[in-house]
Amino acid sequence: MSRFKTLTRLIKNQNMIIGKDIIEQNNKSEVENFNSDFAYLSDKLTKSGANVSEIVNKIADFQVAIPSWALGAGGTRFGRFSYGGEPSSLEQKLDDVGLIHALTHSAGAISLHIPWDIPSDVKAIKEKAASHGLIFDAMNSNTFQDQPNAKQSYKFGSLNAVNEDARAYAVEHNKEVIRIGKELDSKSLTVWLADGASFPGQLNFQTALSKTEQSLKEIYAGMPEDWKLFIEYKPYEPNFYSTTIQDWGTSFMLANACGDRAYTLVDLGHHLPNSNIEQIVATLMYKGKLGGFHFNDSKYGDDDLTVGSIKPYALFLIFNELVYGIENNPQNPYPAWMIDASHNIKDPLEDLIQSLEAILIAYAQALLVDQKALKDAQLNNDVVRAQEILQNAYRTDVRPLLKAARLHTGAALDPIAAYRNLKVRETLISERGLNVKATGL
Amino acid sequence: MSRFKTLTRLIKNQNMIIGKDIIEQNNKSEVENFNSDFAYLSDKLTKSGANVSEIVNKIADFQVAIPSWALGAGGTRFGRFSYGGEPSSLEQKLDDVGLIHALTHSAGAISLHIPWDIPSDVKAIKEKAASHGLIFDAMNSNTFQDQPNAKQSYKFGSLNAVNEDARAYAVEHNKEVIRIGKELDSKSLTVWLADGASFPGQLNFQTALSKTEQSLKEIYAGMPEDWKLFIEYKPYEPNFYSTTIQDWGTSFMLANACGDRAYTLVDLGHHLPNSNIEQIVATLMYKGKLGGFHFNDSKYGDDDLTVGSIKPYALFLIFNELVYGIENNPQNPYPAWMIDASHNIKDPLEDLIQSLEAILIAYAQALLVDQKALKDAQLNNDVVRAQEILQNAYRTDVRPLLKAARLHTGAALDPIAAYRNLKVRETLISERGLNVKATGL
Amino acid sequence: MSRFKTLTRLIKNQNMIIGKDIIEQNNKSEVENFNSDFAYLSDKLTKSGANVSEIVNKIADFQVAIPSWALGAGGTRFGRFSYGGEPSSLEQKLDDVGLIHALTHSAGAISLHIPWDIPSDVKAIKEKAASHGLIFDAMNSNTFQDQPNAKQSYKFGSLNAVNEDARAYAVEHNKEVIRIGKELDSKSLTVWLADGASFPGQLNFQTALSKTEQSLKEIYAGMPEDWKLFIEYKPYEPNFYSTTIQDWGTSFMLANACGDRAYTLVDLGHHLPNSNIEQIVATLMYKGKLGGFHFNDSKYGDDDLTVGSIKPYALFLIFNELVYGIENNPQNPYPAWMIDASHNIKDPLEDLIQSLEAILIAYAQALLVDQKALKDAQLNNDVVRAQEILQNAYRTDVRPLLKAARLHTGAALDPIAAYRNLKVRETLISERGLNVKATGL
Amino acid sequence: MSRFKTLTRLIKNQNMIIGKDIIEQNNKSEVENFNSDFAYLSDKLTKSGANVSEIVNKIADFQVAIPSWALGAGGTRFGRFSYGGEPSSLEQKLDDVGLIHALTHSAGAISLHIPWDIPSDVKAIKEKAASHGLIFDAMNSNTFQDQPNAKQSYKFGSLNAVNEDARAYAVEHNKEVIRIGKELDSKSLTVWLADGASFPGQLNFQTALSKTEQSLKEIYAGMPEDWKLFIEYKPYEPNFYSTTIQDWGTSFMLANACGDRAYTLVDLGHHLPNSNIEQIVATLMYKGKLGGFHFNDSKYGDDDLTVGSIKPYALFLIFNELVYGIENNPQNPYPAWMIDASHNIKDPLEDLIQSLEAILIAYAQALLVDQKALKDAQLNNDVVRAQEILQNAYRTDVRPLLKAARLHTGAALDPIAAYRNLKVRETLISERGLNVKATGL
Repeated sequence: MSRFKTLTRLIKNQNMIIGKDIIEQNNKSEVENFNSDFAYLSDKLTKSGANVSEIVNKIADFQVAIPSWALGAGGTRFGRFSYGGEPSSLEQKLDDVGLIHALTHSAGAISLHIPWDIPSDVKAIKEKAASHGLIFDAMNSNTFQDQPNAKQSYKFGSLNAVNEDARAYAVEHNKEVIRIGKELDSKSLTVWLADGASFPGQLNFQTALSKTEQSLKEIYAGMPEDWKLFIEYKPYEPNFYSTTIQDWGTSFMLANACGDRAYTLVDLGHHLPNSNIEQIVATLMYKGKLGGFHFNDSKYGDDDLTVGSIKPYALFLIFNELVYGIENNPQNPYPAWMIDASHNIKDPLEDLIQSLEAILIAYAQALLVDQKALKDAQLNNDVVRAQEILQNAYRTDVRPLLKAARLHTGAALDPIAAYRNLKVRETLISERGLNVKATGL
Repeated sequence: MSRFKTLTRLIKNQNMIIGKDIIEQNNKSEVENFNSDFAYLSDKLTKSGANVSEIVNKIADFQVAIPSWALGAGGTRFGRFSYGGEPSSLEQKLDDVGLIHALTHSAGAISLHIPWDIPSDVKAIKEKAASHGLIFDAMNSNTFQDQPNAKQSYKFGSLNAVNEDARAYAVEHNKEVIRIGKELDSKSLTVWLADGASFPGQLNFQTALSKTEQSLKEIYAGMPEDWKLFIEYKPYEPNFYSTTIQDWGTSFMLANACGDRAYTLVDLGHHLPNSNIEQIVATLMYKGKLGGFHFNDSKYGDDDLTVGSIKPYALFLIFNELVYGIENNPQNPYPAWMIDASHNIKDPLEDLIQSLEAILIAYAQALLVDQKALKDAQLNNDVVRAQEILQNAYRTDVRPLLKAARLHTGAALDPIAAYRNLKVRETLISERGLNVKATGL
Repeated sequence: MSRFKTLTRLIKNQNMIIGKDIIEQNNKSEVENFNSDFAYLSDKLTKSGANVSEIVNKIADFQVAIPSWALGAGGTRFGRFSYGGEPSSLEQKLDDVGLIHALTHSAGAISLHIPWDIPSDVKAIKEKAASHGLIFDAMNSNTFQDQPNAKQSYKFGSLNAVNEDARAYAVEHNKEVIRIGKELDSKSLTVWLADGASFPGQLNFQTALSKTEQSLKEIYAGMPEDWKLFIEYKPYEPNFYSTTIQDWGTSFMLANACGDRAYTLVDLGHHLPNSNIEQIVATLMYKGKLGGFHFNDSKYGDDDLTVGSIKPYALFLIFNELVYGIENNPQNPYPAWMIDASHNIKDPLEDLIQSLEAILIAYAQALLVDQKALKDAQLNNDVVRAQEILQNAYRTDVRPLLKAARLHTGAALDPIAAYRNLKVRETLISERGLNVKATGL
Repeated sequence: MSRFKTLTRLIKNQNMIIGKDIIEQNNKSEVENFNSDFAYLSDKLTKSGANVSEIVNKIADFQVAIPSWALGAGGTRFGRFSYGGEPSSLEQKLDDVGLIHALTHSAGAISLHIPWDIPSDVKAIKEKAASHGLIFDAMNSNTFQDQPNAKQSYKFGSLNAVNEDARAYAVEHNKEVIRIGKELDSKSLTVWLADGASFPGQLNFQTALSKTEQSLKEIYAGMPEDWKLFIEYKPYEPNFYSTTIQDWGTSFMLANACGDRAYTLVDLGHHLPNSNIEQIVATLMYKGKLGGFHFNDSKYGDDDLTVGSIKPYALFLIFNELVYGIENNPQNPYPAWMIDASHNIKDPLEDLIQSLEAILIAYAQALLVDQKALKDAQLNNDVVRAQEILQNAYRTDVRPLLKAARLHTGAALDPIAAYRNLKVRETLISERGLNVKATGL
C-alpha cells in the first residue's frame, strides 16, 4: 500500500513525519460528510448567537503537551504488557509526539522527564523537535526512584527528607533539571513529590512540611527569572498513609511561600473520592495560582485512564471553569496543559489521540456555554435554567467544530482512523521491532 | 393571558389537565427548528444504519413512574425550604403527575407510599388517574418512621427487629400495603428497609439477616400470584454503621430465598463511592433478578439529585446494559422504572421534567449503540474501538429524537419551556396557596 | 430509692445538680478495683519514664464544650425517634450539661446556638451556668435555616448570597450572635455555612467565594478585640454538588484574609472519604491557625456518631498531633473543644458521656507517647520502631488514669453506670414528661 | 556476639533455624515484667468471668500462613526500594517463614505462588518445611502476568477471556497448580483474578461472568475431593473500570455455582471505601461460605499495609464476627488465614511480625467479648451497653496474653526485639548478600 510505503520511507530518513499531503489525501473520503455536518451545526450555533469561526480558531490553537514517558506501554505493580514499536530513545519519543501532532495538530509540545530523557546532543534534539513543530514544555524531575549509582536514596523522602544529604541531593537534581531545560528553551519546572509516609509515626508532619518548603524555596531560587515552578499535589500513592503535599491547600500554601512565579498544578487523578475539582480550579484561578494542568480520567484513584473515558461531564465542568478563568482572571497565567495518563492496554498513540479528542470536545462545549445567560440565571437563583444552559452546551455534538479546526490546520479529520489507515503502528514495529521497551516507568 | 386562563379553568373543574390543544399551540413556535434538526439527525443516523422510527417509538413508549412523595419540596436534616403550590392530597398529587405526563408523555405512572397516600375513595382515585392516563406502579411501604399512634416502634428495626411484636407489626403493614395496592391494580411491592445499626455491637448481623429473610418470606407469601416483590438495598443512611440489606448481593440472596417473583431493585444513589453500577445491572439481568430501578443522581451519597445532573455518562453506561438486557435476557422481566429524587431547591415539577429528559437522552443514546460492531470489537479486544463505539453514540445530540417522540404523542417539544410559558406553578399557587406542604417526608 | 429521691428533690428546686456526696457514695463500690488497677498502671508507667501525676492532672483539666442543640434526640431526613425527658428550655439544657459535668468533670462549658438559645434573662442564665460550673464557649450562628417571620431567605445562600439583602441579613445575624455572646462572656464565634450549590451552574464559584470573604470580614470587624472567629469547612451536605467553604484550604485562606484572630475549625466528620485529618491538624497548628475542634465519629459522611465508636485509632493519631502542637506550637492558641454529634438512637446524655470517655482515652494515650523516642526513630527512618512507639501508647489500657482524674475532681468513677444507677433519665422524664422535644434541629 | 554466631552457624548448615534455647535465653530479661503483667491481667479477667488459660491456648493455636511472595521488598508502579538479604529461592523463603515462626510460633504455614515457587525437589522442600514446623497452606495461581515464553497472553483476561485459547491456557495453569499442591500436601487453591476492563465497552459483562463461571467449574472439577477452592474478589486494580469478580456477592454466586467445596475468600484491602467488612464476614459464615481470609490494612485502596497499622478497631470488629462464626456456624469450615501485605519500606520480616502481633491482639480482644452480655444488650436494644461491652474488650491491654502464649510455645516474648537483638537481618545479608531480589512481584 502506497501510503504505508511513503511513511516507511520517511522513517528511514530518520525523521518520522506524516506529510500534510498524505493526510489531505486520507481526509478526502470524509470531507463531504464533514461539510454537511459542519454546515448544519455552524448554522444552528450562529443562530443561537455563537461566533463559530472564533470557536474553531480557539480549538485550533489549543495545544497540549505530551509527556515523554507516556509513549510506551504503562503498567501496574502487578505487571506490564508490552506494546510493539515503543520508542527507545528521546529522538524516537519526539517522533511519536510528532506523529500525534501531525494527525491532530493539538499536541505541539513535549514534556521531558529527567533523568529518563537527558539529551546527548541538545542541538540535534532541538532541530528534531522543530521539524515536528514541537516545543519543550515543563520539565519534570524525578525524586521518587533511586537511579543506578545514586549517591543518596529517596526511599524515605526527597525534598522532605530528614537526612540532609538526601534532601540536598534532591534539590540539586531539580537544579540540574532546570539547567537541562534552559538549554531546550523550556520555561517551567514541574515538581511532583512522592514524599510521604506509609505508616503513622513514620514522619513528623510539621518537620516534613517545613523541609519541603525550604527545599522548594531553594529550587525556586535556582530558576531563571522567566521560569515558573509548578507544585503538584496528590493525596496518596506511592505512600499509603500520608503524602506531604496532600492537597491543593498545601500546594497553594507552598507556592505562596516560594513567590510570584510558583503555582499549583492540578492533576485530575490526584484527589480523594468525590472531590469537586472544578471548584478547586476556580479558587486557584481566582487567586492567580493555577499554573499547570494534567489531564487523565479515573474511577477509583490515580487510575491514569484516557481523558474523558469515565467522567466526561466532570471534565466539561472543569473546562467551564478554565474557560471562565482564562476570560476573567488576568491575574492567572495561561495554564500549561499536559496529558498524564498510563497506557496499560491500549496502543499509547491511539490512547493519546483519544485523550486529545476528549479534551477538545470538553473545551469546545465549554466555549459554547452562554456565559451571559448563565450569569443571569445565577443572579436570579434560577437553578433549573442554569443547569439547562450548561447541559445545552454539553449535549451539543461539537465534533464538527474539532474537525473544522483540524481541516484548517492540515490535520486528519478522524485521527484514529487515519492512524490505522496509514498503518502507523505497523510501521513503527517494522522499524523499531516488537520487543523494545520505552525508557522510563 | 389566555393559556393561563384555560389552565386555571380546568383546575377549577377539579381535574388539572393541560389539553393537547394547548400544548400543540405552544409547540408551534418551535416546530420549524425541530423539523430542521430532526431531518438532519434522522438522515445521518439512517445512513449509519439506525432505524430511526423504531428508536423514536421506543422513546415514546418509555414510561417512568413518579413517586407520590416527590411532588413537594424535599429537605435535609438541616431543614427544608418550602415551595408554593405543593399538593396536599392524593388527588392533587395525581394532578401533578398528570401535568408532567401531559407535558412529556413519559410519566404514565405513579408510585404510592403508604401510609402517606391511603386513598379514601378508591373508585374516584382510579378514575382520576385514568383521566390523566396514569396507572399505579409499585406500592411502597414505610417501616422507617413511627406514625402517630403506632402500636410498635421501628426505632430499632422493622423486618429485622429483635422485638417480635415490632417485626410482626412491620410485616402486617406490608400486607396492608398489598391490600391497598390490589384495589388500585398495582402489581408490585417495593420494600426499602432502613433497618440496620448505627453502632458496632448494636445488632447481631446474622440474627438481623435471618429475621429479615423470614419477614420477607411472610410478605412474599401474602402477595397475589401476579405480583412481584422488589427488594431494595442501600449501604447506609439513616443508619450509619450498617444496613441489614447493604448491597445487591444481600438483596439478591434474599430474593432467591423468597422465590421466583422476588427481585432486586437498584437505586442509583444506594452504593458506596466508585461502585460500578452498570456491572451490577448486567449481573442481575443475566440472572433474571433485576426487578426495579430508581433513577436519581449523586456526587457523594444518596444525594437524590436530578437524574443526569452529575454523571450523565455513567447513566448512559447503565442504560447500555439495560438496553442490552432487555434485548438479550428473556429470563429478566421488564423492569419497573421510577424517579426517586428529592427536590430541595428546584421546583419539584421542573426537576422531574429535567430528570425525565435525562433518562430519555441516556436511553436514546443507548439505543444508538452499534451492538454488532461493539461485539466485534470486544471479540478482537479492540479496546480503543469499543470506546469509540460507545462514545459515538453518547456524543450524538439525540434531543431531536425525544422531541419527535413527544410531538408524536402530543406532548410538548420543550416541556420546561411549556411549563413556564403556561405558568403552571403560578396556577398551582393561586389554586392551592403558597404555604401548603406536601404530605410525606 | 434514696439517691433517686435526692436527685428529684434537687430538680424541684429548679437546679438539677447531682451533689458530690451522692457521687462519692456511688463510687464506693468501685474504689477498691480502681485502686488496684491504678497502682498497677501507675507503677508500670512510672518505670517506663512517664510522669503519671502530671498526666492525670492534664486529663482532669481537659474540658469539652457541649453544644446546646445536642441534648435532645437527633434525626435524619427520614425521621426522628424522640427520647423522653428532653430539655425544652435553655435552662433545662444548662441543667443537662450540668448533669454530665457533675458525673464526668470534663464538660465544663456549653456552646449556644442562636436563635435556638436566646436567653430571656441573661443574669439568671449566667447564675445557673455558674451553679453548674459551666462557662459559655463559642457561640454558633444559624444561617442554614429560615426562621419563622424571617425577612430574608437563606434558601440560596447566606454569607455567599448573590442577593445582597440576604447576605446583609446573614451578616447582621452573626453580629447579633456576637452581641448575645458578649453578654454571656463568650469569647468566640463559630461560623458554619451550609452555603453552596446542589447543581452545576447554580453558583459562580468565584463570586460565591468573594462574597463569603467579604461577609466574614464584616463579621470579623464586628467582633470585640478579645474574640476569635472560627471558620468551619465541610465538603457536602446539605448541598450536594459544592460547598463554598469545602475544605481546610479554603477556610485557611479565608481566615488569613480576615486577620490574626480568625482561625480554621476542624470537625472530624467534615471530610471526604479517607482524608488524613491528623495531617491537616498538624499543618494548621504549624501555621498557628487551628482555632477549634468538633469531635464526633463517622463511617460514611458527617454521620455525627459517638466519638471513638468507629475509628478510635484515627482519633488517637489526631490527638497525637494535638498534643504535639500544644507542646510545640506557641503560635497556635489553645483550641476550643466541642462535641458535635447527633443522638439518633441513644440517650443523648449517655451518648455524650461515652464521647467524653473516648476523647479522654485518646488524649491520655497521646500523652503517653514517648516523644523523644519517636523523634529518634523518625530521624533514623526506623518506621517499624515509630509504629511500635505509637501503638505501645495506644494499646495501653489508660482507663485507670481517667478514673483517677475523676476521683480527684469528685466525679464518678464510671459515669455511665452512675447515670443509670442514679436513674437520671427516669428523673428527667418524671420531671419534664415523656413527649417534650428539645428546641433546635 | 555469641547469639549472632550461633545463628550464622546454623545458616551455614543450610537450615536457618533459631533454636529454642537461643530464644529462651533472649527472653530472660523480660520474664519478670511479663510475670507481673500477666498476673495482674489474668487476675482481673478471671474475676470478670473469663477463662484465661483457654484464651491463651486459643492464641497459641492460631496459625497464619505467610505467602511466599511477601518475603522480599514490595513496590509500586513508581518503583521499588530493595532490602538486603532477600530470599532468592524457595528454600530461602521457607527459611524466612521458619525464622518468623520460631520467633512467634504463629506462622506455621506457607502459601506458595506458582510459577514463582515451583519446587525442583519436592521431597527436599517438604523436609525443609517440616524442619521449620511449617505446612503448605492454600496454593495460589497467577494468571495476571505473562511469563516468559508463555503461549498465550493474559493481557485481556484469563478465566474470563474471549479468546478461548487464552482461557483454556489459564484453566490448565490452575490445574497445574493443583498438581504441584497435591505433591506438597496442600489442600486448597486460591484463585485471584485480575480479569476485568479498564474502559467502558471493553468487555461484555455478561459474557465475562459466564466464562468465568465456566472456567471456575472446570478448575473445581479438577480438584481432588478433599480440596477447597477459594474465590477472591476485588473491586479494582490492576483494571480500573471493572473487575469481573468485583465483590463478595459475585464471588458467593460463583462459589454456589461451583459446588460445596467452593468458598469466598475475603481480603481486607479488596473493598470500596467505607465498606462494612465485618457484616460481609458475618453473612458469609452464616451461609457457610467463608473459606479464606487475607489480612492487611489500608487507608485508601488495596494498600497492603501492615495489619492493624491503620484501622485496628475495624480489625477487632471483624474478629468479633470471626470468633462468633467459629463458635456458632458449624456450616462454615475453619477459615484459612494468610497475611497478604506488601513491604515497601519496612524490613519484610519485621513487618510480618508486626502483622502477626496485630492479628493476635484483635483475636484476643474478640475472645474477651462477653457474648452473653452482648446478646442481652442486643435483645434489649441497649445500644450504649452493647458498645460498652465491645469497647471494654477492645480497650483491654491483651499483650500479656500473647506473651503467655508465646512463652508457652517457646517463642519470643517480644519477637521484634528478639529479631533485632539476634541480628537476624544482618545475618541474612551476610549470608545472601545485599543486592539479591526475591523472586515474584
